[in-house]
Amino acid sequence: MKLDFSKLDGLIPAVIQDHASGRVLMVGFMNEAAFTKTLESGNVTFFSRSRNKLWMKGESSGHVLKVKSIATDCDDDSLLIQVDSLGPGVCHNGYESCFYRTYDDGAWVESERPTYDPRAIYGNSK
Amino acid sequence: MKLDFSKLDGLIPAVIQDHASGRVLMVGFMNEAAFTKTLESGNVTFFSRSRNKLWMKGESSGHVLKVKSIATDCDDDSLLIQVDSLGPGVCHNGYESCFYRTYDDGAWVESERPTYDPRAIYGNSK
Repeated sequence: MKLDFSKLDGLIPAVIQDHASGRVLMVGFMNEAAFTKTLESGNVTFFSRSRNKLWMKGESSGHVLKVKSIATDCDDDSLLIQVDSLGPGVCHNGYESCFYRTYDDGAWVESERPTYDPRAIYGNSK
Repeated sequence: MKLDFSKLDGLIPAVIQDHASGRVLMVGFMNEAAFTKTLESGNVTFFSRSRNKLWMKGESSGHVLKVKSIATDCDDDSLLIQVDSLGPGVCHNGYESCFYRTYDDGAWVESERPTYDPRAIYGNSK
Protein backbone atom coordinates (compact mmCIF):
# COMPACT_ATOMS: atom_id res chain seq x y z
CA MET A 1 0.00 0.00 0.00
CA LYS A 2 1.65 3.17 -1.20
CA LEU A 3 1.23 6.77 -0.15
CA ASP A 4 -0.14 9.14 -2.78
CA PHE A 5 2.42 11.88 -3.36
CA SER A 6 0.79 13.04 -6.59
CA LYS A 7 -1.62 15.71 -5.35
CA LEU A 8 0.74 18.42 -4.10
CA ASP A 9 3.71 18.17 -6.44
CA GLY A 10 5.23 15.23 -4.61
CA LEU A 11 4.41 16.33 -1.07
CA ILE A 12 2.00 15.19 1.61
CA PRO A 13 1.24 16.94 4.91
CA ALA A 14 2.45 15.26 8.08
CA VAL A 15 0.70 16.17 11.31
CA ILE A 16 2.97 15.83 14.34
CA GLN A 17 1.21 14.95 17.59
CA ASP A 18 2.77 14.51 21.03
CA HIS A 19 2.04 10.88 21.86
CA ALA A 20 1.71 11.56 25.58
CA SER A 21 -0.31 14.77 25.72
CA GLY A 22 -2.16 14.54 22.40
CA ARG A 23 -1.09 18.08 21.57
CA VAL A 24 -0.66 18.81 17.86
CA LEU A 25 2.82 20.32 17.65
CA MET A 26 3.25 21.19 13.99
CA VAL A 27 2.46 20.33 10.39
CA GLY A 28 5.30 19.67 7.96
CA PHE A 29 5.54 18.25 4.48
CA MET A 30 7.21 15.07 3.31
CA ASN A 31 8.20 13.83 -0.09
CA GLU A 32 8.85 10.15 -0.59
CA ALA A 33 12.53 10.49 0.34
CA ALA A 34 11.65 12.28 3.58
CA PHE A 35 9.15 9.58 4.48
CA THR A 36 11.71 6.85 3.79
CA LYS A 37 14.31 8.69 5.86
CA THR A 38 11.81 9.04 8.71
CA LEU A 39 11.14 5.31 8.67
CA GLU A 40 14.81 4.37 8.49
CA SER A 41 16.08 6.80 11.13
CA GLY A 42 13.15 6.94 13.53
CA ASN A 43 13.53 10.73 13.53
CA VAL A 44 10.89 12.87 11.82
CA THR A 45 12.38 14.24 8.60
CA PHE A 46 10.55 16.71 6.40
CA PHE A 47 11.10 18.17 2.98
CA SER A 48 11.78 21.86 3.48
CA ARG A 49 9.90 23.83 0.85
CA SER A 50 11.89 26.99 1.55
CA ARG A 51 15.30 25.29 1.43
CA ASN A 52 14.32 22.65 -1.13
CA LYS A 53 16.00 19.78 0.70
CA LEU A 54 15.45 17.13 3.37
CA TRP A 55 15.32 18.54 6.86
CA MET A 56 15.55 16.42 9.98
CA LYS A 57 13.57 18.33 12.59
CA GLY A 58 16.02 19.22 15.35
CA GLU A 59 19.16 18.97 13.24
CA SER A 60 20.26 22.42 14.41
CA SER A 61 18.25 22.86 17.63
CA GLY A 62 18.53 19.33 19.00
CA HIS A 63 14.73 19.33 19.33
CA VAL A 64 14.41 16.00 17.58
CA LEU A 65 11.04 14.28 17.11
CA LYS A 66 11.32 10.54 17.81
CA VAL A 67 8.70 8.51 15.97
CA LYS A 68 6.35 6.45 18.13
CA SER A 69 3.82 5.50 15.45
CA ILE A 70 2.66 6.56 11.99
CA ALA A 71 -0.87 6.49 10.60
CA THR A 72 -2.16 7.43 7.18
CA ASP A 73 -5.61 8.48 6.14
CA CYS A 74 -8.24 6.94 3.92
CA ASP A 75 -6.86 8.64 0.80
CA ASP A 76 -3.21 7.77 1.52
CA ASP A 77 -2.33 11.44 1.17
CA SER A 78 -1.75 12.62 4.76
CA LEU A 79 0.24 11.31 7.71
CA LEU A 80 -0.38 11.50 11.44
CA ILE A 81 2.82 10.87 13.36
CA GLN A 82 2.87 10.32 17.11
CA VAL A 83 6.16 11.48 18.55
CA ASP A 84 8.28 11.83 21.62
CA SER A 85 9.43 15.45 21.38
CA LEU A 86 12.94 15.82 22.83
CA GLY A 87 13.00 19.60 23.09
CA PRO A 88 11.13 22.09 25.23
CA GLY A 89 9.26 23.06 22.09
CA VAL A 90 9.10 22.46 18.35
CA CYS A 91 8.47 26.03 17.26
CA HIS A 92 11.43 28.14 16.23
CA ASN A 93 9.66 31.09 17.86
CA GLY A 94 10.07 29.47 21.29
CA TYR A 95 6.77 27.71 21.85
CA GLU A 96 5.89 24.10 22.63
CA SER A 97 3.67 23.97 19.55
CA CYS A 98 3.72 26.01 16.35
CA PHE A 99 -0.03 26.49 16.91
CA TYR A 100 0.32 29.10 19.65
CA ARG A 101 -2.09 31.66 18.21
CA THR A 102 -5.86 31.37 18.26
CA TYR A 103 -8.44 33.18 16.20
CA ASP A 104 -10.40 35.72 18.22
CA ASP A 105 -12.80 38.15 16.61
CA GLY A 106 -10.79 38.85 13.48
CA ALA A 107 -7.28 38.56 14.91
CA TRP A 108 -4.77 35.84 15.75
CA VAL A 109 -4.04 36.14 19.45
CA GLU A 110 -1.13 34.51 21.27
CA SER A 111 -2.85 31.98 23.48
CA GLU A 112 0.07 30.58 25.47
CA ARG A 113 3.49 31.51 26.77
CA PRO A 114 6.84 30.52 25.21
CA THR A 115 8.61 27.50 26.68
CA TYR A 116 12.17 28.50 25.78
CA ASP A 117 14.24 31.38 24.45
CA PRO A 118 14.85 30.73 20.74
CA ARG A 119 17.84 33.11 20.70
CA ALA A 120 19.66 30.70 23.01
CA ILE A 121 19.12 27.87 20.52
CA TYR A 122 19.16 29.43 17.10
CA GLY A 123 21.13 32.64 17.77
CA ASN A 124 19.79 35.94 16.55
CA SER A 125 19.67 34.93 12.92
CA LYS A 126 16.80 32.46 13.55
CA MET B 1 -2.77 39.12 10.40
CA LYS B 2 -3.48 37.16 7.23
CA LEU B 3 -3.10 33.50 6.41
CA ASP B 4 -0.58 32.62 3.72
CA PHE B 5 -2.41 30.83 0.91
CA SER B 6 0.45 31.26 -1.56
CA LYS B 7 2.47 28.08 -0.99
CA LEU B 8 0.11 25.38 -2.28
CA ASP B 9 -1.74 27.07 -5.12
CA GLY B 10 -4.15 28.86 -2.81
CA LEU B 11 -4.64 26.06 -0.29
CA ILE B 12 -3.58 25.43 3.28
CA PRO B 13 -3.95 22.22 5.26
CA ALA B 14 -6.46 22.22 8.11
CA VAL B 15 -5.99 19.63 10.84
CA ILE B 16 -9.27 18.65 12.48
CA GLN B 17 -8.99 17.61 16.12
CA ASP B 18 -11.79 16.43 18.43
CA HIS B 19 -11.83 19.06 21.17
CA ALA B 20 -12.87 16.59 23.85
CA SER B 21 -10.72 13.55 23.12
CA GLY B 22 -7.77 15.21 21.37
CA ARG B 23 -8.06 12.69 18.54
CA VAL B 24 -6.97 13.94 15.13
CA LEU B 25 -9.92 13.13 12.90
CA MET B 26 -8.82 14.25 9.44
CA VAL B 27 -6.81 16.70 7.37
CA GLY B 28 -8.54 18.77 4.73
CA PHE B 29 -7.58 21.77 2.64
CA MET B 30 -9.02 25.26 2.66
CA ASN B 31 -8.75 28.13 0.27
CA GLU B 32 -9.55 31.62 1.46
CA ALA B 33 -13.25 31.26 0.60
CA ALA B 34 -13.49 28.01 2.57
CA PHE B 35 -11.83 29.61 5.57
CA THR B 36 -14.20 32.57 5.43
CA LYS B 37 -17.19 30.24 5.11
CA THR B 38 -15.95 28.24 8.11
CA LEU B 39 -15.72 31.41 10.21
CA GLU B 40 -19.10 32.70 9.12
CA SER B 41 -21.02 29.43 9.47
CA GLY B 42 -19.25 27.79 12.40
CA ASN B 43 -19.19 24.57 10.36
CA VAL B 44 -15.89 23.30 8.97
CA THR B 45 -15.88 23.91 5.22
CA PHE B 46 -13.08 22.68 2.98
CA PHE B 47 -12.14 23.18 -0.62
CA SER B 48 -12.55 19.84 -2.33
CA ARG B 49 -9.60 19.25 -4.64
CA SER B 50 -11.36 16.41 -6.43
CA ARG B 51 -14.63 18.29 -7.00
CA ASN B 52 -13.01 21.74 -7.29
CA LYS B 53 -15.57 23.46 -5.07
CA LEU B 54 -16.38 24.34 -1.47
CA TRP B 55 -17.43 21.38 0.59
CA MET B 56 -19.05 21.66 4.00
CA LYS B 57 -18.06 18.53 5.82
CA GLY B 58 -21.26 16.64 6.58
CA GLU B 59 -23.36 18.24 3.86
CA SER B 60 -24.45 14.80 2.64
CA SER B 61 -23.79 12.61 5.69
CA GLY B 62 -24.95 14.98 8.42
CA HIS B 63 -21.60 14.41 10.12
CA VAL B 64 -20.99 18.13 10.55
CA LEU B 65 -17.91 19.47 12.33
CA LYS B 66 -18.83 22.37 14.63
CA VAL B 67 -15.94 24.75 15.21
CA LYS B 68 -14.84 25.19 18.82
CA SER B 69 -11.58 27.09 18.18
CA ILE B 70 -9.10 27.76 15.40
CA ALA B 71 -5.33 28.15 15.72
CA THR B 72 -2.74 28.91 13.10
CA ASP B 73 0.95 28.14 13.07
CA CYS B 74 4.06 30.31 13.12
CA ASP B 75 4.16 30.54 9.31
CA ASP B 76 0.44 31.32 8.92
CA ASP B 77 0.17 28.42 6.48
CA SER B 78 -1.62 25.69 8.46
CA LEU B 79 -4.71 25.56 10.64
CA LEU B 80 -5.55 23.46 13.69
CA ILE B 81 -9.29 23.40 14.27
CA GLN B 82 -10.83 21.99 17.44
CA VAL B 83 -14.28 20.63 16.71
CA ASP B 84 -17.35 19.03 18.12
CA SER B 85 -17.94 16.16 15.68
CA LEU B 86 -21.66 15.49 15.26
CA GLY B 87 -21.41 12.13 13.57
CA PRO B 88 -20.26 8.71 14.71
CA GLY B 89 -17.23 9.24 12.50
CA VAL B 90 -15.72 11.60 9.95
CA CYS B 91 -14.33 9.01 7.57
CA HIS B 92 -16.42 8.03 4.58
CA ASN B 93 -15.12 4.49 5.06
CA GLY B 94 -16.98 4.20 8.37
CA TYR B 95 -14.35 5.09 10.95
CA GLU B 96 -14.24 7.72 13.70
CA SER B 97 -11.03 9.13 12.22
CA CYS B 98 -9.63 8.98 8.71
CA PHE B 99 -6.36 7.89 10.33
CA TYR B 100 -7.44 4.32 11.02
CA ARG B 101 -4.40 2.56 9.55
CA THR B 102 -1.00 2.40 11.19
CA TYR B 103 2.36 1.58 9.66
CA ASP B 104 3.64 -1.82 10.71
CA ASP B 105 6.72 -3.36 9.17
CA GLY B 106 6.14 -2.19 5.61
CA ALA B 107 2.35 -2.28 5.52
CA TRP B 108 -0.56 -0.07 6.57
CA VAL B 109 -2.61 -2.10 9.03
CA GLU B 110 -6.15 -1.31 10.13
CA SER B 111 -5.70 -0.42 13.78
CA GLU B 112 -9.27 0.12 14.89
CA ARG B 113 -12.82 -0.95 14.14
CA PRO B 114 -15.39 1.02 12.14
CA THR B 115 -17.91 3.07 14.11
CA TYR B 116 -20.72 3.04 11.55
CA ASP B 117 -21.82 1.46 8.30
CA PRO B 118 -21.02 3.91 5.49
CA ARG B 119 -23.50 2.19 3.14
CA ALA B 120 -26.31 3.33 5.44
CA ILE B 121 -25.15 6.94 5.08
CA TYR B 122 -23.70 7.25 1.62
CA GLY B 123 -25.46 4.41 -0.18
CA ASN B 124 -23.61 1.84 -2.27
CA SER B 125 -22.08 4.33 -4.65
CA LYS B 126 -18.87 4.62 -2.65
